[in-house]
Amino acid sequence: MQETIDRIRKFRDERDWLQFHNPKNLAVSISIEAAELLELFQWKSAEESARHAEENREKVSDEMADVAIYLLELADVLGIDLAQAIDAKLVKNAAKYPVEKSKGRSTKYTDL
Amino acid sequence: MQETIDRIRKFRDERDWLQFHNPKNLAVSISIEAAELLELFQWKSAEESARHAEENREKVSDEMADVAIYLLELADVLGIDLAQAIDAKLVKNAAKYPVEKSKGRSTKYTDL
Amino acid sequence: MQETIDRIRKFRDERDWLQFHNPKNLAVSISIEAAELLELFQWKSAEESARHAEENREKVSDEMADVAIYLLELADVLGIDLAQAIDAKLVKNAAKYPVEKSKGRSTKYTDL
Amino acid sequence: MQETIDRIRKFRDERDWLQFHNPKNLAVSISIEAAELLELFQWKSAEESARHAEENREKVSDEMADVAIYLLELADVLGIDLAQAIDAKLVKNAAKYPVEKSKGRSTKYTDL
Repeated sequence: MQETIDRIRKFRDERDWLQFHNPKNLAVSISIEAAELLELFQWKSAEESARHAEENREKVSDEMADVAIYLLELADVLGIDLAQAIDAKLVKNAAKYPVEKSKGRSTKYTDL
Repeated sequence: MQETIDRIRKFRDERDWLQFHNPKNLAVSISIEAAELLELFQWKSAEESARHAEENREKVSDEMADVAIYLLELADVLGIDLAQAIDAKLVKNAAKYPVEKSKGRSTKYTDL
Repeated sequence: MQETIDRIRKFRDERDWLQFHNPKNLAVSISIEAAELLELFQWKSAEESARHAEENREKVSDEMADVAIYLLELADVLGIDLAQAIDAKLVKNAAKYPVEKSKGRSTKYTDL
Repeated sequence: MQETIDRIRKFRDERDWLQFHNPKNLAVSISIEAAELLELFQWKSAEESARHAEENREKVSDEMADVAIYLLELADVLGIDLAQAIDAKLVKNAAKYPVEKSKGRSTKYTDL
């Protein structure tokens, strides 16, 4: 992970782009890239989407990478350890969605 | 990273949620969580956004984790190595944004 | 339509909120509200989504209104007539998606 | 408005696209188009965004139209009158953001 972060940082600094990378702009960019990922599945059914992802593996992989790059840049700018953030959030999610109440049900999600 | 993926997978499987996690639904969820992250900066100026992120560190960290969790789940479902995907995309981005033409300029981005 | 715009404008100006409503912030807000609308269908199948929309008619209607309000505010701030903009775009879309090539096919969309 | 809706409906039906236009897919499409609109302002400051919108008036207008078209299609599919939905939401928003507490302050928004 650290190696990946170093590579992203190097890419950014060679282009002197840190000046544009305030947290708001990075959050905007994460949303934009997330929508480009979503666009790959725009009119597909859920069932088709797995096959479609296989057939467009490189495009899907590229769009996922774009989301991940901006997410890691935001984490880097804010000094947040993303792996730790995930661990902490999984603990909260486990409290929010107890196994016995959530098993096999998606409904709780939409009540967020 | 693998440890984190294992934890996310365990969380999902204990709740029997894989059935909802087709690529389209996961892409939808990444977009929704990205927007919740963005909402934290909704009316802030770029300048305020850094201070605001500091003051709301836990909220920001939690929303970033939510994006990351769904992104890792999608990678897991598709058998994509996200670190490799990032490396491959950085190589493409380097070709797309040569240092000499991109240095200190954000304009190329918007021509994507 | 003009009556609706007048009402939105009055609501905004009573609160002295025009100062926050630059085009970028309004575009950010449209994205955030669009994601809140999408969240109502997050884990639903396409088939379930029609029934789900019926059962949550008020929520769906409210989230759609939020998107529309910010869209009309942006149009108002930029002096754009949204009905005219739609007409002009439909003409372009008709050229982009000729009936004979597009009939019954969603694939062209994803090649955007 | 009704004339615009009729035109959108005609465009859709000539291409036999109603079959793809379930509420979930339309909500997905609204989010995608909203992100394309946002992309026009991706790295701009709030201050630059007004001038940038002027200079790219047609692009901005086109992306706004795309959001509006899908929003009107969703309203049409669900039998929702969007102007009425806006009126109803403004009444709720007025209760949520009383003038005396909200005047000149954007903070309440982020507590949504």
